[in-house]
Amino acid sequence: MIVPREPQLRRMVAYVGLPVLLMALYDLVVVFGFKVMHWTWLGSPHVPLGLYGSAIGVIVGFRNNSAYGRWWEGRTLWGAVVNNSRSFARQVVSAIRANNPDEVPEVEALQVSLTHHQIAYVHALRQHLRQLPPWEELARILPKDEIEYLKTRNNVPLELQLRMGRMLLEAKDKGWTSHLAWQAMDRNLDDLADAQGGLERIKNTPLPKQYDYFPQLFVQLYCLVLPMGMVQQLGWFTPLGSTLVGFMFLALDKIGRDLEDPFDNSIFDVPMTAICKTIEINLRQLLGETDVPAPEKPIHGVLW
Amino acid sequence: MIVPREPQLRRMVAYVGLPVLLMALYDLVVVFGFKVMHWTWLGSPHVPLGLYGSAIGVIVGFRNNSAYGRWWEGRTLWGAVVNNSRSFARQVVSAIRANNPDEVPEVEALQVSLTHHQIAYVHALRQHLRQLPPWEELARILPKDEIEYLKTRNNVPLELQLRMGRMLLEAKDKGWTSHLAWQAMDRNLDDLADAQGGLERIKNTPLPKQYDYFPQLFVQLYCLVLPMGMVQQLGWFTPLGSTLVGFMFLALDKIGRDLEDPFDNSIFDVPMTAICKTIEINLRQLLGETDVPAPEKPIHGVLW
Amino acid sequence: MIVPREPQLRRMVAYVGLPVLLMALYDLVVVFGFKVMHWTWLGSPHVPLGLYGSAIGVIVGFRNNSAYGRWWEGRTLWGAVVNNSRSFARQVVSAIRANNPDEVPEVEALQVSLTHHQIAYVHALRQHLRQLPPWEELARILPKDEIEYLKTRNNVPLELQLRMGRMLLEAKDKGWTSHLAWQAMDRNLDDLADAQGGLERIKNTPLPKQYDYFPQLFVQLYCLVLPMGMVQQLGWFTPLGSTLVGFMFLALDKIGRDLEDPFDNSIFDVPMTAICKTIEINLRQLLGETDVPAPEKPIHGVLW
Amino acid sequence: MIVPREPQLRRMVAYVGLPVLLMALYDLVVVFGFKVMHWTWLGSPHVPLGLYGSAIGVIVGFRNNSAYGRWWEGRTLWGAVVNNSRSFARQVVSAIRANNPDEVPEVEALQVSLTHHQIAYVHALRQHLRQLPPWEELARILPKDEIEYLKTRNNVPLELQLRMGRMLLEAKDKGWTSHLAWQAMDRNLDDLADAQGGLERIKNTPLPKQYDYFPQLFVQLYCLVLPMGMVQQLGWFTPLGSTLVGFMFLALDKIGRDLEDPFDNSIFDVPMTAICKTIEINLRQLLGETDVPAPEKPIHGVLW
Amino acid sequence: MIVPREPQLRRMVAYVGLPVLLMALYDLVVVFGFKVMHWTWLGSPHVPLGLYGSAIGVIVGFRNNSAYGRWWEGRTLWGAVVNNSRSFARQVVSAIRANNPDEVPEVEALQVSLTHHQIAYVHALRQHLRQLPPWEELARILPKDEIEYLKTRNNVPLELQLRMGRMLLEAKDKGWTSHLAWQAMDRNLDDLADAQGGLERIKNTPLPKQYDYFPQLFVQLYCLVLPMGMVQQLGWFTPLGSTLVGFMFLALDKIGRDLEDPFDNSIFDVPMTAICKTIEINLRQLLGETDVPAPEKPIHGVLW
Repeated sequence: MIVPREPQLRRMVAYVGLPVLLMALYDLVVVFGFKVMHWTWLGSPHVPLGLYGSAIGVIVGFRNNSAYGRWWEGRTLWGAVVNNSRSFARQVVSAIRANNPDEVPEVEALQVSLTHHQIAYVHALRQHLRQLPPWEELARILPKDEIEYLKTRNNVPLELQLRMGRMLLEAKDKGWTSHLAWQAMDRNLDDLADAQGGLERIKNTPLPKQYDYFPQLFVQLYCLVLPMGMVQQLGWFTPLGSTLVGFMFLALDKIGRDLEDPFDNSIFDVPMTAICKTIEINLRQLLGETDVPAPEKPIHGVLW
Repeated sequence: MIVPREPQLRRMVAYVGLPVLLMALYDLVVVFGFKVMHWTWLGSPHVPLGLYGSAIGVIVGFRNNSAYGRWWEGRTLWGAVVNNSRSFARQVVSAIRANNPDEVPEVEALQVSLTHHQIAYVHALRQHLRQLPPWEELARILPKDEIEYLKTRNNVPLELQLRMGRMLLEAKDKGWTSHLAWQAMDRNLDDLADAQGGLERIKNTPLPKQYDYFPQLFVQLYCLVLPMGMVQQLGWFTPLGSTLVGFMFLALDKIGRDLEDPFDNSIFDVPMTAICKTIEINLRQLLGETDVPAPEKPIHGVLW
Repeated sequence: MIVPREPQLRRMVAYVGLPVLLMALYDLVVVFGFKVMHWTWLGSPHVPLGLYGSAIGVIVGFRNNSAYGRWWEGRTLWGAVVNNSRSFARQVVSAIRANNPDEVPEVEALQVSLTHHQIAYVHALRQHLRQLPPWEELARILPKDEIEYLKTRNNVPLELQLRMGRMLLEAKDKGWTSHLAWQAMDRNLDDLADAQGGLERIKNTPLPKQYDYFPQLFVQLYCLVLPMGMVQQLGWFTPLGSTLVGFMFLALDKIGRDLEDPFDNSIFDVPMTAICKTIEINLRQLLGETDVPAPEKPIHGVLW
Repeated sequence: MIVPREPQLRRMVAYVGLPVLLMALYDLVVVFGFKVMHWTWLGSPHVPLGLYGSAIGVIVGFRNNSAYGRWWEGRTLWGAVVNNSRSFARQVVSAIRANNPDEVPEVEALQVSLTHHQIAYVHALRQHLRQLPPWEELARILPKDEIEYLKTRNNVPLELQLRMGRMLLEAKDKGWTSHLAWQAMDRNLDDLADAQGGLERIKNTPLPKQYDYFPQLFVQLYCLVLPMGMVQQLGWFTPLGSTLVGFMFLALDKIGRDLEDPFDNSIFDVPMTAICKTIEINLRQLLGETDVPAPEKPIHGVLW
Repeated sequence: MIVPREPQLRRMVAYVGLPVLLMALYDLVVVFGFKVMHWTWLGSPHVPLGLYGSAIGVIVGFRNNSAYGRWWEGRTLWGAVVNNSRSFARQVVSAIRANNPDEVPEVEALQVSLTHHQIAYVHALRQHLRQLPPWEELARILPKDEIEYLKTRNNVPLELQLRMGRMLLEAKDKGWTSHLAWQAMDRNLDDLADAQGGLERIKNTPLPKQYDYFPQLFVQLYCLVLPMGMVQQLGWFTPLGSTLVGFMFLALDKIGRDLEDPFDNSIFDVPMTAICKTIEINLRQLLGETDVPAPEKPIHGVLW
């Protein structure tokens, strides 16, 4: 995610710079052909630019709406991961308690292990969505042998959930937590599974291919036709009209394309690394740990 | 579902190729009539193309929004099937336990049977929506006599649900699961029934017929009138204007039509077979099975 | 609901036929006046047709969105009725059980009675929304004296719910069902009450009158002005432009109007009779009954 | 709420009559100045009416969407009040029961009191939203001394809820209701509190002032400029173009303004009095009372 | 939040005054150059103003929708804070009770402490979102030593929640509240955590930077080109056309920008201080306190 309130001009030039440059060159070629070479067939003021524009407006507007809808749904589902991680840890820390002093160390170890597993879960989920290996992050958090075992599974976050579910049941069986508190924690795990399912849905089901292909095709065709419809009347000022209109539609198309896949290792991603760090900090503080990592900082104006 | 990041040109040509070709031919006929045969009544620059365009924009834009809304709702409901299948299996595997060693084989058989029934359920639901027989898939998973019985029912997934509900009650009666865990699993079954109801709703209630008929009719009438409004001013370049505008609106209309029925055995379907395979893999791994099927692969760039 | 995939031309002609015919006649009168009688004040190419069109586009587009939103919400609420009816019956059949063999006949009678009451409930709810008497349907399902009593109440479905609630409490008091199972069934009744409330809300609160009146008024005024703005330039071809544009907007207005009240005994209704039949079939099969009614068939292409 | 299916012409004339009349007069003044006084600077066919129109279309379309969204959300929240009131009363009547015959009168008194308090609650909530005193209505329902006490509180519905919560706890303590039934009723009270909070949110947080001010300002400026852009070409027919376009945008603006505050004692309000009457009738019939009030009737075509 | 029903002209002039003034000056410069200096290259009636307009309409319309969506979601989440705070306090006051007279003072102290902590929570949450120190407000409500401890934590509201969770568990352990009542209160805390997570999501994830940058850039470019496209035809009346159209789009852009960050210490913020005050008044009255603060008043027409 690009961080706001920073100088942006350079980034925005880079954003649609190349296609706009190509467009300007093409516009100049058309003007040159028309004005210098007198290829009058190159242009006609009757090209129905407005009619093209209304069709493109419909599809580009629709694409922006649905792409942003996907992006914000992805962000909201990560928000659900944040909320449920916190609630789960709050319950673990406060509602699992030893029945007698002898059990205290064992119970505390369980609380730490459950909370650390939850931290591992969010990191694993993030890497799962980015289709990157999670092992480096997990090595900081989980014991070695567990990681070795996890390497044999194909959905690591799901496996971590299963383990937490088993630990909870054990705690209930030993009487360290009441039935109702167990139910509340188990529902948190369910809600996390729902959020994970939603995130995988967005990852695995892109916007239907047609909504990706046609806006781009329409905009490119439009850019080809634009100078033809203007050159006779605007002459050498054609690029002012044509490149500017083309730039606007190219930008509209690109904005939608960049947002439609929010977990794609691009600078427009939902900032998952920062979110996972925040969860880790909150959960470690709940455990009373003091050695917590620093919040994720933007790198060159981009928060990952 | 068409898989992204593949060469698409050929598919996209096929997508609206024929109607666009017909449109181009018709445009040429109009130009021929006007320019060669001098049928001047064939065209007038005063045909109100812009006014048609605004009416068509309203209905085509609306149709795209609601068709995509239906498609994405269908996908989201399948996401709920994924989530609840996983949660259900997680509970079955971890919260149903024998009271004494003697019962262990029986309990394990129940866990396997419940999970396999859930796998059968998702396959049956998919075929139910596609209005195809599910028996080939189910034969891989369920015993023969059960399949024979199921063949006598008209809503197979519903019947499978009823059976799972009965198995759960038995497990509770035998003391293999607590009241609260039973409640959680039963609620998962309820949520699955809700998702199934939603999927059947989308399948059985198409977009109101008028929203299907009029966009197509409007676009076709528009295509008929387009060259008439352009031929006097654009002459032999008429197809450039008319066919291009027509192509855009024909594509907009077709995109909406293709998405509005997401369970229709077309290449634009929600990829239900792949989703069911994923559920099967996840659930078999939860059971500890190692002989799991491979994930569904796209066939000629289409994931079913 | 009009059934898709049937010949529709005749229906669609009937759909907006009369107003379009009137419009065409009016257009001809204007042309006749202008061309034959030389009433030149009848037309001017400067009538701002585009400006009218943009105002009409805003309100007609909005109306279509909200009318379809109401229609789909109505359908979704009926979907909730389907889901909760099935879940309720599944619970009744599986979670109400006799404590000893003596009670079996009594318990089975209760199960049948509860399920039949639920079937009666959905039929009564449908007729309540259509403001028709439900007695004919109910006579098939409920005992005579109960129907006599129901005739004294003004919200029949609500009264049926109250009765089911009482039967459930009795079953719980007699120990035929656990507290948690009772809670699940009671929540199903609550969810049904919520769906009923939502359906009554849509029935009793139409789209604000202004959104009904002004789109129609705007479109009619537009149709009056259309030929005036075209007659000078299009001459005898005026109807081609004017009637076609008018037809599009008349159709857009009519589509919205037809959908905005989805329980209105019109051919555009949500197909409530078919939905209720489906529920009846599902519930009777759950009871193991074999004498189930056939699914509702479309009549002249309309499913009620 | 204006009742549909009544003669509406007079009301609709009154609706935007005055501003349209002023607009027509202003248009005539402009034409008079241009044609009779020859103030040619008064008009130019090059005034960019279409460009204004597109900006106004954006903001007026947005305002209509969000105003209707607020209105329908308000109606839906009242629907939640209806549903929860019914469910609450159904539970009170069926799930609170005496342990022995001696307690029957006391229990019945409690059932009546709880249900009457719920009726009082909805009336108080309505008047709270309309910022009117509720005492006249409440005097019909609650004992005098309770009303005297309520007069000292600043959020009457909230206080009534607190009382019902206390009565429920008492009933539970006396063993008249099970823990689970108590939980269900208590959750109904919570859901009512949520609906109340939502209604207060809509009441206390109007649409941001800018969305109220600018559409009106834009439309008024547009009306000023409209005849200037048409007078040269339309001459004495200017009002036909200008007043008609102005009328459409004035109506669009007014419709949005009227709906954006749905609890404002205007004829466009959500019909809260009628809804509260319906709740009262339903609840009194559940209690078995026969002396129920008649449903609210529209007064001069308006349902309050 | 700007309070409605107050004189607004001055504020609205201030709202977009400066950019509109600059725009008018620039327009005059263009006219001066064209008419007086005869720099005819400065203007051409063929500049495609309508095409720019349609691209800008798409992005500005989209931005207004999503900015208002964020603002209203923020308001709705605060509504959830209001509802859950009230429900939580209602439960605390009515469902926590002493087992014997000796415990009464202790229980009452706990009720007061829990309710005061909830009041402190909402104030701390507000300041957390505004990134301001909460200590001044909290000093009114919490004991000094607790505040000292809170100063060492980086998410103060989360810490306050944890404390309330612990107090509730203690109350349950001492038998002052039933399991089910504890569960209800604990779920309220969970719902508050969810609302907090949603508020932090809106605060920390602005609208993607592109949607912020490009609308502004497009509108500014449009304003530069507007007088060029009008000067030849409108002459000295150019500012009437150009400045007015520019004003409309500048206002549309600014409205969206102001709403997109609803917790930003601007006059367009969701009125969080007033909401927190309302909660404090409601909760203190529930406790029976009479010394409650006055509701927040608007300051110079702005409610904070």
